[in-house]
Amino acid sequence: MSNIRDVAKVAGVSIATVSRALSAPETVSKASLKKVHDAIEQVQYKPNMLARNFRRHRAFNIVVLVPNMANTFFATVVRGIEDVAQQHGYGVLLGDTRDVLQREEEYLKLVETSQADGVIQLRPHWEGNSILPRDNIVAVSACGCENTPYPCVRIDNAEASKTATEYLISLGHKRIGVITGLADNPHTIDRLKGYRDAISEAGIEYNDMMIAEGEFTMWSGLNAARHFIRMPADERPTAILSMNDEMAIGAIKAFRANKIDVPNDVSIIGFDDIEVSRYTEPALTTIAQPAEQIGKAAANMLLKLIEGKEVRQTDYVLPFEFVVRASSTPVK
Amino acid sequence: MSNIRDVAKVAGVSIATVSRALSAPETVSKASLKKVHDAIEQVQYKPNMLARNFRRHRAFNIVVLVPNMANTFFATVVRGIEDVAQQHGYGVLLGDTRDVLQREEEYLKLVETSQADGVIQLRPHWEGNSILPRDNIVAVSACGCENTPYPCVRIDNAEASKTATEYLISLGHKRIGVITGLADNPHTIDRLKGYRDAISEAGIEYNDMMIAEGEFTMWSGLNAARHFIRMPADERPTAILSMNDEMAIGAIKAFRANKIDVPNDVSIIGFDDIEVSRYTEPALTTIAQPAEQIGKAAANMLLKLIEGKEVRQTDYVLPFEFVVRASSTPVK
Repeated sequence: MSNIRDVAKVAGVSIATVSRALSAPETVSKASLKKVHDAIEQVQYKPNMLARNFRRHRAFNIVVLVPNMANTFFATVVRGIEDVAQQHGYGVLLGDTRDVLQREEEYLKLVETSQADGVIQLRPHWEGNSILPRDNIVAVSACGCENTPYPCVRIDNAEASKTATEYLISLGHKRIGVITGLADNPHTIDRLKGYRDAISEAGIEYNDMMIAEGEFTMWSGLNAARHFIRMPADERPTAILSMNDEMAIGAIKAFRANKIDVPNDVSIIGFDDIEVSRYTEPALTTIAQPAEQIGKAAANMLLKLIEGKEVRQTDYVLPFEFVVRASSTPVK
Repeated sequence: MSNIRDVAKVAGVSIATVSRALSAPETVSKASLKKVHDAIEQVQYKPNMLARNFRRHRAFNIVVLVPNMANTFFATVVRGIEDVAQQHGYGVLLGDTRDVLQREEEYLKLVETSQADGVIQLRPHWEGNSILPRDNIVAVSACGCENTPYPCVRIDNAEASKTATEYLISLGHKRIGVITGLADNPHTIDRLKGYRDAISEAGIEYNDMMIAEGEFTMWSGLNAARHFIRMPADERPTAILSMNDEMAIGAIKAFRANKIDVPNDVSIIGFDDIEVSRYTEPALTTIAQPAEQIGKAAANMLLKLIEGKEVRQTDYVLPFEFVVRASSTPVK
């Protein structure tokens, strides 16, 4: 195996120059840098980057805290993060937290012990139930909520659910149900606000019976739908806004099993636009979040913060799209 | 912020002992180790683990090469890997390769430059189209195929598709179609072998027209189904084995759009048992791979190899399950 001496010899520079080219390239002239890089290629030298990282006091890794790896929406956000990180020479360490604070704490130790330089949190900031922000931890919230007390990339969740609710109202629906996430989840709160604004503006009274709690999984959506199935048909919602696509898919399954037709008996709108929502029967009307773009923007923001650069916009709101498919139809 | 001196003082040991407790704990007595750990807790010392890693010549990271992050099956395997790695104090670096060799090569550099200690490859070994095995790279193949030339964790893919095909034959099907992955993908080859064995044993002649190529995405499954839709009804397969659930979901969509009923006109069997396959209409009959167990077994194997321990079984075959749901029915 070749070593740093071979590189110096082939490049025609000193060993010290090769060493600096690897550990602090900004201190070496462009011409020397090119010679060193060409020589590294030629002799197939594999520098020990662990040594560079140690010298530079940087791990060149970021940690992503993912509440649920098996959720396609999160996987797509992570793909965006990973793409930007890789382009900048950073690795992405995966923290599959399963929504457990104790696990988040474990992964945060990677930053506290210098094995990672910063963290992207995919769980929304939750007052009294969040380990971030924290001194000495560079962090960005992706897919966050309003009023996050550290840099955040998100869509306008209230506006998105308001848009979906207004669409259902325009189709003549008056009994509009909601399948939410956990009641104190900030996404639930933001999205419920949009729903309430829309029905209030249309003169529809808010009714607690129209709300069923889920937890963003298919299974919980199926379970939440049972609340509506148990109602007499003339009290049951004629349309439902589900706070993610997975729960909408679960709800459709429950309605079908009870001979309640989607969309003829009940329209359903999802949230996220995961790939499978185009393939469900019926295909889902949904709010499309720009998942990969959210990931990219969050990674760009975090890398700037890690490198001490200025970030002007610390609450970065990306546009959503409203996608109409077959699961929503005018009230009968 | 507290430092190593504070730890030594509180623990009542020398600074050298604290340093060794962090960088080479095996050289320190259990009693001293406990004192040091208690003191670290008490003074809230955050050791620079980058320094430890540098001294120990180990990154305490592993890389996972994932062909497609947004594929739920892979995400579940990664969850298993991550769980075991975390328990052993290793981080998981994500390599979203998008099935591109050039990107795999980029991620392998993390091992070659000592920023990771080993790699788990989720793409099957593909002769002439694989960057592994490689000298000086500790690697394990997860979800691999037969005859992988490095340690491998997998199911018996040929046996699994033989089981599914035999089930269709037992339902009276004789024209059995297959939606494959790319023709030279080792999973395609192994699974096609099981299909051919099953039909041959039943005296059914192999017919090229029964094979449609996909590439393991929903969209490609929808597209592959068009090949069968274009056939006259009396030549069209009455049952189809799809080499993953995503393609089966795409195919169901295509058949439905063409008023071909699943399962009454055509039975469909998937592969993997991803969560959504329970929620599709109809719910998918499928081969259940133990995705999380495969990930855990692969991580355990890799960590043993990294730590220089013996691994006896280098081709580790886990059992699959055959799950019958509504998408398969006796031939009419």
